[in-house]
Amino acid sequence: MKREKNKVPAGGTVNTVKKQKPIQSEKAVNPVQSVQAKPNKADNKKSLKIRFLGGVGEIGKNMTALEYGKDIIIIDAGLTFPSENMPGVDLVIPDVTYLAQNKNKIRGIVITHGHEDHIGSLPYILKELSAPIYGTKLSLTLIENKLKEQKINDAVLNCIKPRSVVKLGCFTVEFINVNHSIAGAVALSVTTPVGVVFHSGDFKIDYTPVAGETMDLTRIAEIGKKGVLLLMAESTNVELEGFTMSESVVKDTLEHVFGDNADKRLIIATFASNVHRLQQILDLAVKYKRKVAFSGRSMINIAEAAEKIGELKIPANLIVDVEKTGSFKDGQIVIVSTGTQGEPMSALTRMASGEFNKVKIGNNDTVVISASVIPGNEKMIYGVINNLYRLGAEVIYESLEPIHVSGHALRGELRTLHSLVKPKFFIPVHGEYRHLKKHARLAEEMGMRPTNIMIAEIGDTVETDGKNIKFGEKIPAGSRFVDGVGIDGADSFVLRDRIHLSEDGLLVAVVAVEELSARLSSVEIVSKGLVMPESAVAEAKAALSNTLNQIDLRTVRDETELSGIIRRSLRNYIFKATKKNPMIIPIVMVV
Amino acid sequence: MKREKNKVPAGGTVNTVKKQKPIQSEKAVNPVQSVQAKPNKADNKKSLKIRFLGGVGEIGKNMTALEYGKDIIIIDAGLTFPSENMPGVDLVIPDVTYLAQNKNKIRGIVITHGHEDHIGSLPYILKELSAPIYGTKLSLTLIENKLKEQKINDAVLNCIKPRSVVKLGCFTVEFINVNHSIAGAVALSVTTPVGVVFHSGDFKIDYTPVAGETMDLTRIAEIGKKGVLLLMAESTNVELEGFTMSESVVKDTLEHVFGDNADKRLIIATFASNVHRLQQILDLAVKYKRKVAFSGRSMINIAEAAEKIGELKIPANLIVDVEKTGSFKDGQIVIVSTGTQGEPMSALTRMASGEFNKVKIGNNDTVVISASVIPGNEKMIYGVINNLYRLGAEVIYESLEPIHVSGHALRGELRTLHSLVKPKFFIPVHGEYRHLKKHARLAEEMGMRPTNIMIAEIGDTVETDGKNIKFGEKIPAGSRFVDGVGIDGADSFVLRDRIHLSEDGLLVAVVAVEELSARLSSVEIVSKGLVMPESAVAEAKAALSNTLNQIDLRTVRDETELSGIIRRSLRNYIFKATKKNPMIIPIVMVV
Repeated sequence: MKREKNKVPAGGTVNTVKKQKPIQSEKAVNPVQSVQAKPNKADNKKSLKIRFLGGVGEIGKNMTALEYGKDIIIIDAGLTFPSENMPGVDLVIPDVTYLAQNKNKIRGIVITHGHEDHIGSLPYILKELSAPIYGTKLSLTLIENKLKEQKINDAVLNCIKPRSVVKLGCFTVEFINVNHSIAGAVALSVTTPVGVVFHSGDFKIDYTPVAGETMDLTRIAEIGKKGVLLLMAESTNVELEGFTMSESVVKDTLEHVFGDNADKRLIIATFASNVHRLQQILDLAVKYKRKVAFSGRSMINIAEAAEKIGELKIPANLIVDVEKTGSFKDGQIVIVSTGTQGEPMSALTRMASGEFNKVKIGNNDTVVISASVIPGNEKMIYGVINNLYRLGAEVIYESLEPIHVSGHALRGELRTLHSLVKPKFFIPVHGEYRHLKKHARLAEEMGMRPTNIMIAEIGDTVETDGKNIKFGEKIPAGSRFVDGVGIDGADSFVLRDRIHLSEDGLLVAVVAVEELSARLSSVEIVSKGLVMPESAVAEAKAALSNTLNQIDLRTVRDETELSGIIRRSLRNYIFKATKKNPMIIPIVMVV
Repeated sequence: MKREKNKVPAGGTVNTVKKQKPIQSEKAVNPVQSVQAKPNKADNKKSLKIRFLGGVGEIGKNMTALEYGKDIIIIDAGLTFPSENMPGVDLVIPDVTYLAQNKNKIRGIVITHGHEDHIGSLPYILKELSAPIYGTKLSLTLIENKLKEQKINDAVLNCIKPRSVVKLGCFTVEFINVNHSIAGAVALSVTTPVGVVFHSGDFKIDYTPVAGETMDLTRIAEIGKKGVLLLMAESTNVELEGFTMSESVVKDTLEHVFGDNADKRLIIATFASNVHRLQQILDLAVKYKRKVAFSGRSMINIAEAAEKIGELKIPANLIVDVEKTGSFKDGQIVIVSTGTQGEPMSALTRMASGEFNKVKIGNNDTVVISASVIPGNEKMIYGVINNLYRLGAEVIYESLEPIHVSGHALRGELRTLHSLVKPKFFIPVHGEYRHLKKHARLAEEMGMRPTNIMIAEIGDTVETDGKNIKFGEKIPAGSRFVDGVGIDGADSFVLRDRIHLSEDGLLVAVVAVEELSARLSSVEIVSKGLVMPESAVAEAKAALSNTLNQIDLRTVRDETELSGIIRRSLRNYIFKATKKNPMIIPIVMVV
């Protein structure tokens, strides 16, 4: 895809439509003509506020707002998947209370790329605020699918191209091509009334990409030369010295996998959204005369969507249904599957456990896992790999071969970015605290003054008037849990209960009284998730009856007091019998 | 410590005592004199059975039994820590049903080293079988502490030294010094009636150890030259090419940490059982004129025990109480702490979260985490590191500096072992399935016939008569859960309940009837861990009352049937209201 220059002079105006579809067409302009920030004098007394809603002090749910006067733009709106201490939670999204309170100021949501940690919370936050969304073609296609699933049909999606420029209130946003593990990733150069803010998005520098263009270092150099006030740059791989390997390396490895396994069936698991990786696999399938079958719902959906917008070229007669692969020889098939992280319900996981009827793994299969392990998923994915070996398959994965390359800049690339942007101020983003700290040091090592570097956390506001930078007021911010039908219902109390239940189980004690302050009628005890012999349950029941019979129920004020008596009566007994502290649920029935 | 040769001719007899203390004194013999297996003709018709109770297809709870005729010896008796899908479980130990059924055959338990995955299940299995235990001084000291905690006082502990030989029934066991991340690690050369079985234990080859001797390659070469029937060797690092770094590398890094941080307080977290690492820290503290404070119960206990047996040399006046460190300058103190894995209750984790009153972290602290991350612990330890940075500390950890070296052989060292032992048969051990598979391939690449290599899993028996090798019968084996007071109580049903409770919460529905098949008295509903508004609870209660009022209770046979009606009545309603499937607990009260 060639970059189109000077095609549509956008001049900072964007057509918006009320219906979500069709996506507004791509725009590209000569940025040198159009990016003309004209701060007025009144503006100069105000300051730019950078508000962090997510993505700092964590890797996940990226969301940053730039605010100046009566204008706000939002950069990305991601989600995080729940960690172990959030049982039952489906998704974690940023708390956007501040934005909802200021929704009339919001001029647009600018998306750097289509990964979940950058777009995943859109369906939820668009219920609380509305603003046009700007992103490249693939990003918007993925967003569109997501919104459709949540039945949101009135979003305004504006498609931009690298070097497009859009004006959003007092902000002028230019989109700049970068390399990443998804097509259509961009950095942002935001001209604000106090100076230019450069946001790297997620990036790497790939000098030999397999598709698309190398990161637009030329344009970044131009922007840097004109003067950048503030750089925000991602920090994911700041602990690794050197440079990322090019996607071409994966091409070479995949080529030799196809060559070496001529008679074997190939099963390749990869991220559906990594369409360049997908394209390589399709191209090799053509070259080695194999049919391709997609397996896994998201793989099929995203491949379809990417083909529709021209990001993925699927030759005619290449694709077969996975159920029909049995009628081909093993050497004529490559199955492209989801499940790189060992997700329990994914196609690959079910193949490995022998539960996927459409694909039965045997010793003529070579399985390639073309992805890296996201921290926390190690046990799951290695469980899948062990099972594949048990079934006789050959397995090729990252610790053995260069079958995946990172999409995030290593220290060498970060230095390249810093040296081109040459910002006055720097805020490291997209990292846990240790990453931010090390990225700050990298900037210091390159000569930046420590006082010009700010390490922000969620809820922080950083303010700059173009001359100085400082922390501003805190805003309400944090995590919201999507759980079942609701948001926010699963608060810390509900989660504490769930963790308590999973560790120690529960014990329900029902006490029936004829009326409160009257005669005890009967007692029942039921336990779940607790190792407690029948005899101990009977004893506990007897002990509780005994306690209650010794009490003059007429002196018990209310159910709360009676519940307290029940709880106290059981707690010590149960701990002695089980060495556990189950959740004791007293229920008083007035019968 | 010099190896003592030819000191006590043990000749295969071992004194056992009825009281656990004192540990029997170390024995060492000239193995060339003593290792004389004299198979009789009857024996030759029998075969050696290697039975796998744990440690194959997993990294954890190592336990293997060698059985020949009426004799069994057990190699190691480890435990595993529970994984995420075992909530509330304290420990996982091997199922020793087979050994308990054959306990009269057991001649001894031979311990390769004192790590939890090799000794941790001893306090539990010694309740079901009894046998003398053989191990080196540090291993036995750690075992002794463990048994004392569980009030087991009648175990027979026999202390051996490298090159010691003991005769256990028809087996003659020679102990051979290896390097590992704990002192006193040994490999085993077991002479059986059908040939020599060599078991590597956990090992690395350290040509420049900071204490003790290099792995006894000379003796292994002798044994290999005389002929080894079967090699069992660990596979932990078989995915890594090359050789492990020597412990001396850590010494160099630690030396420069002490040198570079002259004015700062040093806090070093390490495994308490890695006494050689501990010794280095103590020695450097002396050299750099710092006092040492131990922090964390296991650190204090193990340091004390190791000093008592002479494995750790603590100079006089070096140790101060951690509470007294405040009266020294920062540059005069090094705190040695537990918590390398971010364990929630460990000293380091509490320091990082600001909850450890004895040590308050600030920007004059340098924290060194001298350990690698055990897979699965990433989130916890990185959480600790992030918090330490937040408090202003400098943190040095493995991904930044060579502050830890692995205790497990890399591929280069595995090749060295194979080439010296030159076994006829090979069984890879101490690895997940993928590790075992790759270790098998490494052996094949070195020229071994694939049919001479067996990949075993838990419950498998491998049989050899000295000429051939094959799989024998399966034995009962697997995991047992230690949970609260009991073993085995937490079965798959209890765990399923706990996981269900943690994901979806629960709802208790109590129905009081005047007597079964009579009038409904009242209904009560209580939910926990479930996001359900008050109004929905009230509606569910009304719906349930309604259902029950429409039923002629006289037609309901028993409580089970009534419970079924209650469950069905609520299930759909609750799912619609919450998009969750909580555990529904019906309780029928006859009042």
